[in-house]
Amino acid sequence: MDVPSEMKALLLVGDGYTRMPSASALEAMEPYVQPGVIAVPVPGQSQVLIKVGLASINPSDVAFIKGQYGQPRVKGQPAGFEGVGTVVASGDEPYPKSLIGKRVAFATGVSNWGSWAEYAVAEAVVCIPLLDTVRDEDGAAMIVNPLTALAMFDIVKQEGEKAFIMTAGASQLCKLIAGLAREEGYRPIVTVRRDEQIPLLKEMGAAHVLNEKTADFKATLREVIKAEQPRIFLDAVTGPLASAIFDAMPKRSRWIVYGRLDPDTTVIREPGQLIFQHKRIEGFWLSEWMRQFRDRRGPAIMEAQKRFSDGRWSTDVTAVVPLAEAMAKVPAELAKPNGKVFIKP
Amino acid sequence: MDVPSEMKALLLVGDGYTRMPSASALEAMEPYVQPGVIAVPVPGQSQVLIKVGLASINPSDVAFIKGQYGQPRVKGQPAGFEGVGTVVASGDEPYPKSLIGKRVAFATGVSNWGSWAEYAVAEAVVCIPLLDTVRDEDGAAMIVNPLTALAMFDIVKQEGEKAFIMTAGASQLCKLIAGLAREEGYRPIVTVRRDEQIPLLKEMGAAHVLNEKTADFKATLREVIKAEQPRIFLDAVTGPLASAIFDAMPKRSRWIVYGRLDPDTTVIREPGQLIFQHKRIEGFWLSEWMRQFRDRRGPAIMEAQKRFSDGRWSTDVTAVVPLAEAMAKVPAELAKPNGKVFIKP
Repeated sequence: MDVPSEMKALLLVGDGYTRMPSASALEAMEPYVQPGVIAVPVPGQSQVLIKVGLASINPSDVAFIKGQYGQPRVKGQPAGFEGVGTVVASGDEPYPKSLIGKRVAFATGVSNWGSWAEYAVAEAVVCIPLLDTVRDEDGAAMIVNPLTALAMFDIVKQEGEKAFIMTAGASQLCKLIAGLAREEGYRPIVTVRRDEQIPLLKEMGAAHVLNEKTADFKATLREVIKAEQPRIFLDAVTGPLASAIFDAMPKRSRWIVYGRLDPDTTVIREPGQLIFQHKRIEGFWLSEWMRQFRDRRGPAIMEAQKRFSDGRWSTDVTAVVPLAEAMAKVPAELAKPNGKVFIKP
Repeated sequence: MDVPSEMKALLLVGDGYTRMPSASALEAMEPYVQPGVIAVPVPGQSQVLIKVGLASINPSDVAFIKGQYGQPRVKGQPAGFEGVGTVVASGDEPYPKSLIGKRVAFATGVSNWGSWAEYAVAEAVVCIPLLDTVRDEDGAAMIVNPLTALAMFDIVKQEGEKAFIMTAGASQLCKLIAGLAREEGYRPIVTVRRDEQIPLLKEMGAAHVLNEKTADFKATLREVIKAEQPRIFLDAVTGPLASAIFDAMPKRSRWIVYGRLDPDTTVIREPGQLIFQHKRIEGFWLSEWMRQFRDRRGPAIMEAQKRFSDGRWSTDVTAVVPLAEAMAKVPAELAKPNGKVFIKP
């Protein structure tokens, strides 16, 4: 296929990690990415070149461009961990070659050539050839959130207790998990920051939805925990809210941190609970999960495609922003609650 | 044997748990225990009555009498988790009966009839008949510290890294672990609060001894961690010292809390390390370990007796205080560094 020599992209301004961590919200694009024109990258032996159809924006992308994510930035390279598009070129290996012409969901965490660009490079093994029944909006958001949802719900199921707790309940990820939970008779207890998010989350499968901003939040939290005895806490927030939840949870509870939306100090309120109540604090990272549980990646991908195809899952779209308008429009769109923002090259 | 109907004991003043946690040091006995005369307890079916020869004072005893330990206090019962003595009566079961007349090390965590008394009740299964070669001072301190040392060093060995970190390095427990580590070629990195503790700990097996009160402590700590790559952190302290140590440790490190000597706030400095570096925070409690690993209890007890018999282990004695003088003398003796304080009924 005809591939130009240059392309437009949103390029990283910073290098490595930041020394001054800031809040998780994206106040503006300019300090972190700038539009530019660079050479279209050439895929390596095991890689493919993808003409990007739609790129998604995840909380991990925002953390990454700010230099607050687990991977270091490379100044001048395109940002963007995930997208959907058509494979237009490949390395010499048979599997990458076999993908040419196919529509794929892709992740760029390993190749480090981001999706916020007209073309992106990804390892062929982290491309998912899509069924025609999967929409572009679902394909562009198929890896980071859906696989994380399936992997973290797997942890809940292994623990055995029907009830579990999630912060940032209105996120796409939590909605996906709530849906999985409802199907299998589990009881998610979720926290949100706006009353208007409550009815939708209850409909999606949450057993209890607690507004953390209300005066009786802590009393209600303790009542619900006493009644439901949740042992798994999937936490995207940290800070004082998460500390209070973990403190109120019963013996043998596990606080599993996968996000850091609140930059405030995170305190272990009663370290004695670690000793005498056998409570634990750990983390979850999809890359680590895929490394440790290689055999579970394939089935999880199939499960995600089926769910998006038959409508059990569907990505809520807040906005699809053209690449040329991304610098000006993305921060305001991201600030809206509930849905996902995409960049269209 | 001739057992009187009444006995002298140090009796718990408080009930349940405290609402106002205080420092780990024992500033005075009066707020927590009072001398008294009560009926000699009658052992249940599976229990024995022991004429106490010597009772030990562990940090867990101090936490317990203050209402800051994992078990609730029962007002008016004797304190004391551990001791040595002679079995003078028993319940009807064969095993307790078989112990009559024997000198045993015993623990009272299950029976809740403490050792700071002329007579104590213990479950027969938590009595250890002692070899004649084991001194009373070692028998009275055989369970809490030695078994904890063997159990926690087992965690270090399973992890595989030769280097590991311990706070409160001058404690009896850490000295026991340092000795085990030296024998098997492991490299403990320990923190202390006085320079004069350094030479002894180095001699006992510590690879590095760091004084946490010195100005260059944090720089030295980072250097040592970089060179040794310890992954296990056995922590008796919590608070800012422990937070700083965990923060400086490498990927996949485990912060294992078994004590709470510093009542100051305990912060997770970088929750992102839990996610991206797979670091974890958990606790250790001997009772929990014995519950989970029943098969390892017997061999650990044999190992402890052998070590005390052949002199590889020996309990440092700060003072043996007569029961009648305990109220006045124990706090000052406990404040002395390095050794163990006993009560002699």
